[in-house]
Amino acid sequence: MKCRRCGHKASINMRQHKLALCKDHYLEWILSQTERIIGKYKMFTHQDQIVVAVSGGKDSLALWDVLSRLDYNVEGLYIGLGINGGISYSTKSRSYCEEFANLQKSKLNIVEINKELDNTIPELSKQSSRGRGKPCSVCGLTKRHIMNRFAIDKGYDVLVTGHNLDDEVATLFNNTLNWSTGYLQRQSPVLESTHPGLIRKAKPFCRFYERETAAYALLRGIQYIYDECPYAVGAKSIYNKALLNRLEVDRPGAKLSFYLAFLKAKEEGFFTQKGESNINLLNTCPSCGGPTTVIGECAFCRMVTKVNQGNK
Amino acid sequence: MKCRRCGHKASINMRQHKLALCKDHYLEWILSQTERIIGKYKMFTHQDQIVVAVSGGKDSLALWDVLSRLDYNVEGLYIGLGINGGISYSTKSRSYCEEFANLQKSKLNIVEINKELDNTIPELSKQSSRGRGKPCSVCGLTKRHIMNRFAIDKGYDVLVTGHNLDDEVATLFNNTLNWSTGYLQRQSPVLESTHPGLIRKAKPFCRFYERETAAYALLRGIQYIYDECPYAVGAKSIYNKALLNRLEVDRPGAKLSFYLAFLKAKEEGFFTQKGESNINLLNTCPSCGGPTTVIGECAFCRMVTKVNQGNK
Repeated sequence: MKCRRCGHKASINMRQHKLALCKDHYLEWILSQTERIIGKYKMFTHQDQIVVAVSGGKDSLALWDVLSRLDYNVEGLYIGLGINGGISYSTKSRSYCEEFANLQKSKLNIVEINKELDNTIPELSKQSSRGRGKPCSVCGLTKRHIMNRFAIDKGYDVLVTGHNLDDEVATLFNNTLNWSTGYLQRQSPVLESTHPGLIRKAKPFCRFYERETAAYALLRGIQYIYDECPYAVGAKSIYNKALLNRLEVDRPGAKLSFYLAFLKAKEEGFFTQKGESNINLLNTCPSCGGPTTVIGECAFCRMVTKVNQGNK
Repeated sequence: MKCRRCGHKASINMRQHKLALCKDHYLEWILSQTERIIGKYKMFTHQDQIVVAVSGGKDSLALWDVLSRLDYNVEGLYIGLGINGGISYSTKSRSYCEEFANLQKSKLNIVEINKELDNTIPELSKQSSRGRGKPCSVCGLTKRHIMNRFAIDKGYDVLVTGHNLDDEVATLFNNTLNWSTGYLQRQSPVLESTHPGLIRKAKPFCRFYERETAAYALLRGIQYIYDECPYAVGAKSIYNKALLNRLEVDRPGAKLSFYLAFLKAKEEGFFTQKGESNINLLNTCPSCGGPTTVIGECAFCRMVTKVNQGNK
């Protein structure tokens, strides 16, 4: 197969786009597509101060790389979760982020959960009633809280994450199976700030398949952590991804069209703004000052309060 | 496993309801559940004249049986599609309906498409541009038109169909993958008449799994056609059903909760009434007098007109 642009040997073939490209034209294509998506969804501009949350995985490091090459003002944020102490998942993932930042001469901000909260994620999870023993719920809640607070405190304009199309579609699929109306209303390539304590969020890779971000990282020679988080084994999101992968094999482009049709329906006003999770009606948490959908402490502060009470 | 009601040997175990029942209590359960669903969704009453569309398959014959035993005023309607002439799919399916009607001493109305339209479904399909050679689209359009017209002309109050949970969920899944907003707005256990030429429709079996209606038919000794329609091979609905069956195996109750959560979201007003397929804004077809979402001839009349023009 030959590159559509130059006729040299193609490195990747994207069936859903009917597009095969060589290494150089693929890297160029990812850049121009990312720029297009940033513009299409009005995510941010070259004047904005951007922080990208990096996990050490291919998506977030590739995103940092792309945004740097597109000359955006971007820094990294790594959150140390304390997963598997020692030479562990968290230690390895942090060192991939540090190596990348050094090579790029970019600034990496680091927040270590156990310094912030006197607890690692597995410890917090053991002491919390959330998630029935699985740390994923506690981890998600904590990361969202820390990322938001860090970005607000440091005065960034926007927080970006490396969610790819496969991530977005797995989330959409789960929210649709449950008809979680609040989550369906909120799922979007860009989430506006609707509260002074809520950072604007954007997902510039939301329309790239996972294999496309992986191919980018590989062709750019980016070193990243291959392993899944050890706690992710058996997670519903991984089950849903496997099911959706089968669907994609049988109907190439199915994921992309599912996601785009969802965004179109939403844009055309198909969903009402009813329901408990209306992001336009946020309250302020009396403990942390952050945004919350409830009246009183936010879910993160309630979890921490409960864990601390249990330890007295 | 023992029957929850009487302790005798169970004939069926319904994991999603955590309920095992013997033959007698299962048949009783299907009756009482159907009555409950008819009441819950305000489908029809004992004063209504009901016509049930029967295909010769297990669902529609079981539904006719259940409604008769619940003392509703119900007659059958069989539509002969002319599929595989001779001792064929249509001939066999018709004879199952006739046998059932004779045994039950119930009235079966028969409409043969080739007498109404001078064409069988496969012939119509060959001459039509709909469905790209597959007759399923032409068949669905024609059946819906004939059922509706028959029920309106004969003055019935409601048309009921044997759609089971697996059917409804496969349709819902497809409409969700495509975010077909018009279809999502309309999919419902009961469709009110919003036009004088549109019959009220109801699906009393919409909350029974296919295996539950099959078990009912089997335990009641109802003779029905086992074969799928020969044209259904490779249909998207069958692909979707297989995918959803895998999901159900891994997460028992997943289909039911997907469907119920959808109905709840809808009832709570999650979907707006925007979009092209607003059933509350129906027009009248100048050719047949039936309802249509467009201005001008309805889709059925347009198809017939085109086929007739092609034959001149």
